Amino acid sequence: MAERTKAHEMAEKQREISVSEFFAKNRHLLGFDNPRKALLMAVKEAVDNSLDATQEAGILPDIYVELQQIKEDRFKVIVEDNGPGIVKEQIPKIFGKLLYGSKFHRLRQSRGQQGIGISAVLLYGQLTTGKGMHVTSRISPKHQAHYFEIHLDTQKNDPIIKEDKTVEWKKEHGVRIEVELQGTYQKGKQSVDEYIKEIALINPHAQITYRTPEKETLTYARVMNELPKEAKEIKPHPYGVELGVLIRMMQSSSAGTLSAFLQGDFSRISQQLAHEICEKAKLNPRARPSTIARDEAESLFGSIQNTKIIAPPTDCLSPLKEEALIKGLKKEINAEFYCAVTRPPSVYRGNPFLIEVGLAYGGSLEKEEHIKIMRFANRVPLLYQQGACATTESIMDTAWKSYGISQSKDSIPVGPVIVVVHMASVWVPFTSEAKEAIAHYPEIIKEMKLALQEVGRQMASYIRKNVRAREQQERINLFEKYIPELANSLSNLTGEKKEKIQEELEKILKKNMKDLLSDVKEAEQTEIKGKNVAFGEKQTTLGDTDAS
Amino acid sequence: MAERTKAHEMAEKQREISVSEFFAKNRHLLGFDNPRKALLMAVKEAVDNSLDATQEAGILPDIYVELQQIKEDRFKVIVEDNGPGIVKEQIPKIFGKLLYGSKFHRLRQSRGQQGIGISAVLLYGQLTTGKGMHVTSRISPKHQAHYFEIHLDTQKNDPIIKEDKTVEWKKEHGVRIEVELQGTYQKGKQSVDEYIKEIALINPHAQITYRTPEKETLTYARVMNELPKEAKEIKPHPYGVELGVLIRMMQSSSAGTLSAFLQGDFSRISQQLAHEICEKAKLNPRARPSTIARDEAESLFGSIQNTKIIAPPTDCLSPLKEEALIKGLKKEINAEFYCAVTRPPSVYRGNPFLIEVGLAYGGSLEKEEHIKIMRFANRVPLLYQQGACATTESIMDTAWKSYGISQSKDSIPVGPVIVVVHMASVWVPFTSEAKEAIAHYPEIIKEMKLALQEVGRQMASYIRKNVRAREQQERINLFEKYIPELANSLSNLTGEKKEKIQEELEKILKKNMKDLLSDVKEAEQTEIKGKNVAFGEKQTTLGDTDAS
Repeated sequence: MAERTKAHEMAEKQREISVSEFFAKNRHLLGFDNPRKALLMAVKEAVDNSLDATQEAGILPDIYVELQQIKEDRFKVIVEDNGPGIVKEQIPKIFGKLLYGSKFHRLRQSRGQQGIGISAVLLYGQLTTGKGMHVTSRISPKHQAHYFEIHLDTQKNDPIIKEDKTVEWKKEHGVRIEVELQGTYQKGKQSVDEYIKEIALINPHAQITYRTPEKETLTYARVMNELPKEAKEIKPHPYGVELGVLIRMMQSSSAGTLSAFLQGDFSRISQQLAHEICEKAKLNPRARPSTIARDEAESLFGSIQNTKIIAPPTDCLSPLKEEALIKGLKKEINAEFYCAVTRPPSVYRGNPFLIEVGLAYGGSLEKEEHIKIMRFANRVPLLYQQGACATTESIMDTAWKSYGISQSKDSIPVGPVIVVVHMASVWVPFTSEAKEAIAHYPEIIKEMKLALQEVGRQMASYIRKNVRAREQQERINLFEKYIPELANSLSNLTGEKKEKIQEELEKILKKNMKDLLSDVKEAEQTEIKGKNVAFGEKQTTLGDTDAS
Repeated sequence: MAERTKAHEMAEKQREISVSEFFAKNRHLLGFDNPRKALLMAVKEAVDNSLDATQEAGILPDIYVELQQIKEDRFKVIVEDNGPGIVKEQIPKIFGKLLYGSKFHRLRQSRGQQGIGISAVLLYGQLTTGKGMHVTSRISPKHQAHYFEIHLDTQKNDPIIKEDKTVEWKKEHGVRIEVELQGTYQKGKQSVDEYIKEIALINPHAQITYRTPEKETLTYARVMNELPKEAKEIKPHPYGVELGVLIRMMQSSSAGTLSAFLQGDFSRISQQLAHEICEKAKLNPRARPSTIARDEAESLFGSIQNTKIIAPPTDCLSPLKEEALIKGLKKEINAEFYCAVTRPPSVYRGNPFLIEVGLAYGGSLEKEEHIKIMRFANRVPLLYQQGACATTESIMDTAWKSYGISQSKDSIPVGPVIVVVHMASVWVPFTSEAKEAIAHYPEIIKEMKLALQEVGRQMASYIRKNVRAREQQERINLFEKYIPELANSLSNLTGEKKEKIQEELEKILKKNMKDLLSDVKEAEQTEIKGKNVAFGEKQTTLGDTDAS
C-alpha cells in the first residue's frame, strides 16, 4: 500500500447529504426565513394542496383554516378540506419526505409542482418544536378515516410513523392536518389574513372559513359555482427539451422505433413530421431509440430545432378568465372602474403559459401611493419577493404616464390602482423553492407587458372620457348661469325683448347640450369587449390623476 | 376490497423525485439561468474547489483556467490545480452526485459548503451537450494519475462511470477537469474575466493563469507568499441550535450522560455550565441523552437560551486582514486613497462570522457614477443578485453624505469609490443554492454597517484634509501675488520704504505658511492604524466630490 496522503485524509470526510438535512440547514430557501413568514408558509402549502386536490377530484372546495396561539411564539395550524382524501399508504411519504409527489413529473397546471411544500412544513415544525404533523384522511364514506402522527428522519429523508390508527370522523372525505410550529402572527401586508383574502379573490369557486388566533371567524363565501376548467396533462413540446433530456428519454422510451418515440413521447409530432425530423438528422426512423449514439442524438436535436412544429396544446391551462377576475376584484376591492384581460396562451422553453391581468381604478383606492400589485401563479398568491418578480419588472417597464397615471422612470407608478397579474402554466419558473417570485424569462415578460398595456388603455379611455364629461358639464353649468345676464345685455344693445333672447339662448344651449351629453353618455356606456367594465357611483370625483 | 376512489387513482401518480431531477428542471436555482451565466458558474465552482483544496492541504495555489470555444454557443471549460488531488474511489461521487461532499457537515470557513456546486456543472453540461465531465487526479508522485469520464444518472442521482484508467501526467499532484457546456462568452460586468480578476484580488496568495476564448493568456501573479491562516473546525454553539436539531443530536450522540453530551457536542460548555443548564431544566446531568423525552428536551432548550454562554471561538474564521485587502485593491484598482477595516468576529444564529471592508477612492475611478460594489463571501466573488444582497442594503443604509460622497435617500451613493465587502463565516446564509447573495440577517447587516462607517470616516478625513490643504495653498499663492502691490500702497501711505514693507509681509506669510503647511503635511502623513493608508500622486486633483 502506498503512503497516506492529504487526499486520503480528506476522503474520509466525504459524505452524502440528505435533501432534508440540506433544507433543514437552508430553511430560508423554502421560505421559512422568520417566524412570521413561517406561519404563512404553513397555511399556504396546506391550502394550496387542498385546492389542487379538490380541483383534481372535481369537488367545489370547502376549506377550513384555524390558527391557535399556543404560547408567545408558537402556533398550531389546522387546515381541513373536503377533498378526495389520501390513501393510507401514501400519507406518510406525502407529508414526511421531501421531493415526493405526483405533480413534478407531469406537465399540467397545478398549484404545487415540486413535491416539497407540505413536507417542508412538517420539517420546520419538527425543527422548531420537536413535534410531528397530525394527519387525518378519509377517502369515502365506505372507508374509515385514518389518523397518523408523522415525523421526518432528516438523515434519511424518510417518514417516521409515530402513530397510525383508524378514527371516527364526521367528514365523508377530506384531509385534516394539524402542525405546531414557531411563528408569529401579525396582520397587514404579507400576513396570513392577506393570503386568505387573496386566495379567495383568485379562487371565486372556493368557500374558505378562517378562524384567526384572536378567535374571530371570517368566512369568504363562494361566488361562482362552477369549477375551473379541468387542466389536461400534456406531453413535452419538442422545442422545450434539452439535448441531455432527449438522450435520457430515448434511453428509457418504450417505443420500438425512433418515429414512434417522436410521435408518442412528445406533443405535436405527426408521423409525417417524425419522418421529416429523422431525415434531416440522417437517421433511420425505424431505428431503436435506445441505440441512438450521442452524436446522432445531437443531430436529432438540431433537426428538431430546425423543423417547424406548431405550439403546444393549451388545454393544459386553466385560466381564471376575465369575468371571474372582475368578479373577484369587485368582491374584495371597492373601486369605481374594473377591467381584465386574458391573453392567448404562449410558450417559454416549450412550456405553455398564459397571462391574465385585472385592474381596478379609483373609488377608495389611495391616490398618492404606489399602485398595489397582486401577483398570482397558478391561482396562488405570491406575497414575498415582489422586487425579484417578472411581474414587477413588467409593470415598471410599462409606460403608465400615457394611461393617465404618474410614474417616475422605470419604477412602480403612483395612483389609485390595483393591478392583478396571474400566470397560469404547466411549469411556473420560480426564482426559489419557496415559490415567491417568477423568473425573468423574456417570453413571460413580453406577455405580461402586452396584457398590462391592454388594461392600461382601457383605464386611460375611462379616465379620459370621464374627465371630459365632467369638464363639459362644468362648461354647461357656467353658460347656464350667465344666460340671464347675457340676455339682459343683448336686450339693451338690440332693443329685443330680454325674455325672447333668453329663450333663444336656452335653445342653443339645449341643442349643444345634446351633443355634449351624448359624449358623457357614451363614456357611461363604454363596455370593453361588450361586458367587462363596470362603473361605480363616484364618477364625479374622477380625473385628478390625469394631470400627472 | 372497498370501491376504488379518486384517492386511489391519484395515489398511482405519487413518486419520489430525485434531487438531480429536481435541479435539472430547476437549474436556474443553481445559477444556470442563461448561457453566459452558466459559463461563469462552471469556472467559479471549479476554481472555488481548487482554492479550498489547496488551502486545506497547505499548498500555495497555482490554478490554470482555460475556455475553448467549440461552436457558437458551446464551450469547453478546463480548470487545473496543484492541490492534493482526490483519491480514486471518491472521484465519481464528488463530481457525479448532487449533495455529496465534506463541507456540509462541519462548521469551518470554506468556499464550498453545500456539496452541490461542481456536480451541478456536470449536470448542466450533460443536459446541454449530452457529454460528461473528464477528471484527472493525482494524489502524490508515488501514485499514478487517474482519469475518469463521469456522467450523472439523474433519476438515481448517482454517477455513471464511462471511463476509468490510469494516465501519464506531468503534475505531481492536483486535479484537472474538462467539461463541455452550452454557454456564451462576453466580457464586462459579471463575466468570467471579471470573476477571475476579483478572485485574484481576494486571494492574493494565489497564482492564476487564464486563457481566454480569444486565446489570450492573462496571468494574475501571486502577491503574498503566506497561506491564509488555517480555519479550524468548531462544534456548534448552543445558541444556534434549534429544538429539533437538539433532539436529533441527543438521539445520535455517543456521549453516555447529558452532561458529557453538552460538553462534548457543543462549543463553550464547561462541566460547570453543563450542570447549571441541566439543573435549570430539572434534568439529571447523568441521564442518557437518548432517553430524554421531547418535553424534557424543550426544557433543556429553554434552559440553554436562559444561560449565559460565551460567544463561539473564532479560530474557525480566516479573514483576509486589512493588509491583504489593501494589497489586493492596489493590485487591481488605480486609485489615490486606500483603506480597510477588519471587524472583530460576531455571531448570527450561533454561527461565528466576521465582516471586512476595503475602500479605494479617487484616481481613475469614475466620479459621476454609482460607487462600485465588490462582494465576497469566504473569499468568493459574488457577481449576481446584487440587489438581493445584505451587502447592498448595508451600503444603502449608510449615510455617505457625511463622508463627502453624494447619495439620494436609501440608494447607492455616487462618487469615485470602490467598496469591497467580505463576509467570512463557517456558514454563509445565501439566498439561493447558486450562492449569489447573502441573506438579510440583522446581525450581519449591523456588522457590515459598522465596517462601512469606519472606512467612510477614514475616507472623509482624507477628503477633508486634502481639500483643506489645497485651498490653503491657493490662499498662500494669492497672498504672495499681492505682496508687491500691497507693499507699494503701504509705502505711499506710511512713507516707509517699499522694500522694507515687502520683506516684513513676506516674513508674516512665511510664519503663517509654516502653520498652514503643517496642516498639509499632516494630511499627507495620515496613516490609519499606523499602516493602512497609501496615497497616490494625484493629490492636487482632489476634493471635487466634497461639494456634493
